[in-house]
Amino acid sequence: MFQFIENGSVTSPNGFKAAGIYCGIKKRKKDLALIFSDYSCTAAGTFTMNKVKAAPLVISQNVIKLDKSVKAILINSGNANACTGESGYDDALKMQRWCAEKLNLLSTEVLISSTGVIGQKLPVEKIQTGLDEIIPSLSKDGGYDAAEAIMTTDTRIKSYAVKVRLKSGNVTIGGICKGSGMIMPNMATMLGFISTDAKIEKDLLQTLLKETVNVSFNKISVDGETSTNDMVILLANGSSGISIMENSEDYPEFLSALKALTIEMAKSIVSDGEGATKLVTVKVSGTKTKSDANLIGKSIANSSLVKTAIHGADANWGRILSAAGQSGADFDPAKVSISFSNLPILLPNFTLTLDEELASKILSQKEFEIHIDLGEGPEEATWWTCDLSEEYIKINADYRT
Amino acid sequence: MFQFIENGSVTSPNGFKAAGIYCGIKKRKKDLALIFSDYSCTAAGTFTMNKVKAAPLVISQNVIKLDKSVKAILINSGNANACTGESGYDDALKMQRWCAEKLNLLSTEVLISSTGVIGQKLPVEKIQTGLDEIIPSLSKDGGYDAAEAIMTTDTRIKSYAVKVRLKSGNVTIGGICKGSGMIMPNMATMLGFISTDAKIEKDLLQTLLKETVNVSFNKISVDGETSTNDMVILLANGSSGISIMENSEDYPEFLSALKALTIEMAKSIVSDGEGATKLVTVKVSGTKTKSDANLIGKSIANSSLVKTAIHGADANWGRILSAAGQSGADFDPAKVSISFSNLPILLPNFTLTLDEELASKILSQKEFEIHIDLGEGPEEATWWTCDLSEEYIKINADYRT
Repeated sequence: MFQFIENGSVTSPNGFKAAGIYCGIKKRKKDLALIFSDYSCTAAGTFTMNKVKAAPLVISQNVIKLDKSVKAILINSGNANACTGESGYDDALKMQRWCAEKLNLLSTEVLISSTGVIGQKLPVEKIQTGLDEIIPSLSKDGGYDAAEAIMTTDTRIKSYAVKVRLKSGNVTIGGICKGSGMIMPNMATMLGFISTDAKIEKDLLQTLLKETVNVSFNKISVDGETSTNDMVILLANGSSGISIMENSEDYPEFLSALKALTIEMAKSIVSDGEGATKLVTVKVSGTKTKSDANLIGKSIANSSLVKTAIHGADANWGRILSAAGQSGADFDPAKVSISFSNLPILLPNFTLTLDEELASKILSQKEFEIHIDLGEGPEEATWWTCDLSEEYIKINADYRT
Repeated sequence: MFQFIENGSVTSPNGFKAAGIYCGIKKRKKDLALIFSDYSCTAAGTFTMNKVKAAPLVISQNVIKLDKSVKAILINSGNANACTGESGYDDALKMQRWCAEKLNLLSTEVLISSTGVIGQKLPVEKIQTGLDEIIPSLSKDGGYDAAEAIMTTDTRIKSYAVKVRLKSGNVTIGGICKGSGMIMPNMATMLGFISTDAKIEKDLLQTLLKETVNVSFNKISVDGETSTNDMVILLANGSSGISIMENSEDYPEFLSALKALTIEMAKSIVSDGEGATKLVTVKVSGTKTKSDANLIGKSIANSSLVKTAIHGADANWGRILSAAGQSGADFDPAKVSISFSNLPILLPNFTLTLDEELASKILSQKEFEIHIDLGEGPEEATWWTCDLSEEYIKINADYRT
């Protein structure tokens, strides 16, 4: 049993505080966030598959690899500190060291993360000054400020938490995230920071994170199609006294709650996609293999022709079928059926049941489902996407300037 | 030695005629094209990799597979006759048979092709009536009419020809094509029809076509990312009396001319991309393998973040590097250099030489080159792309309605 907490955040679990301030990297808006745990945490992370990795990401990835315990995450927006060479790496190390010193921690107890423009020198001295202001601001109420401070082109704060009732007691999981270029799941930075007061060993924590990311953030973005800075971090500080173990009764329930939380976070990113006006669930079923279901889901979710048709509320099912056809998945087009939020559009043998008016009504809603069944087997996958609008171009045409 | 012919077309080679008329499939514009050779032709073709194949494409593909000689190509626009089931297949067979009967040919001497909306029944009786008008209209001057009649969202007629001077005499190669959704090389229909009066055996013709498509049309679109109707056809009627053979002196020269023609055709498609205002050559060099060069070229040419930055004349080289990084190719980001039309932007070790003002001037031009050198090896590849503008969304949001 779990339920979402109203106004929940990364600070909802016991022992976590956060803050978000303006330190001068952006022109005006909040640009520095700090998440802090009163207790040492085990830490898990998933990181970009991009060959080009930002310096802060490399440093945080190493901390996780070395099984270090973690107490803080420092994040700046407005500058990605990516493609900045050795001096950029030095700047990232400074950011980590200064934060650790001011919190009386070891450097390896601090994870760091940056998001924003690529290839420009990070004004790291502004972070140094900012640390003196942000550390005293840490509070249980600071989750939303932190969520605001990690935003780039995001238009909405993304902050959630769930309360999980387990046989052995209650735990809480909270998270904040950012990401907005996901309208075309292609290189837009996606950051997620998740906390829990459950006690979970490092290896199991990594397994849990991998499994949940696979059905949430990886269903809006794609392995190998990620930015230089993408990361999702999960910290467990154990302060609830409740342990989650692999073969325990509570494990499936905790996993369900974590999945629900991360899916909600992932959907919040899609629905805040640059220029997006609609949140679309792409359900693929009836494939021979899981891999085929994912190939088709990815292809439809990524198709700019499908996404523009959705924007125009145009029931262009041919583009959906064609996107499936070019995905590399194996199927017979004559067995395909397509529906929009339970309204049948296409039945097998190309039998068209499309009612243009009803279909267009569904496609005009803010949230709906496109369901494609391949009629080939038992496997399925769910993806999320949004429409592609003129606004997306405007936002991205002069992002830096 | 070869040179482009002013106002050249698919009718420029000896023995070819063409016509283009309005037969009532579209609302007003020309929608039926016919290409005819006075002499029997060997025929080669390359066809979509999409699992979902339009009926006319399947029929034409079979003609080519069966090594039939060909004398005519009948093409309609306004309706793709794709995802139309068995009755769609029957319609395509009718289209082929009627055309053959009225030209006194065997059905297998006629190739057919359709482009337009997917999933709607082809009004094939309009083609039947249209044939009575188009056959008498066939002429040496009809290439431009045919090129116009195969257009969908294209804004410009695409018609070219080259005169090739060979040791053994002169031959001509001509071609028309359509395709305009290529701004995102993803499922937009691309058709190309090429003719020559050289005499070339079927197998060699297929080899020639494959090799040239690979450096032209496949560098704007992508294997496996194609529409239900994509095809490129090459007919050789031999009426010049000049034979091209694999080991002959003339072979390399003929191949060069064919490549030049198809690259020009491919570039005309990109520069007429939906909403496109700029034609961008993406040159990739210094990779370990050819495959890496192509992965990187494809990734940059397809990146909507790169394409929107180009639209805004924003020298966002970080997006170019990040697109390369997510391509799957193997390289060290620190060895990369980037230039825009010979203006160095980034040198190895992330040494930035970017002059924003000069760079922005280049990116404001109608044609320029993005060159990325990976510093890893001797291989290279050239791709073409265009900018991504608000206009693209407008065109695609309500294409059917």
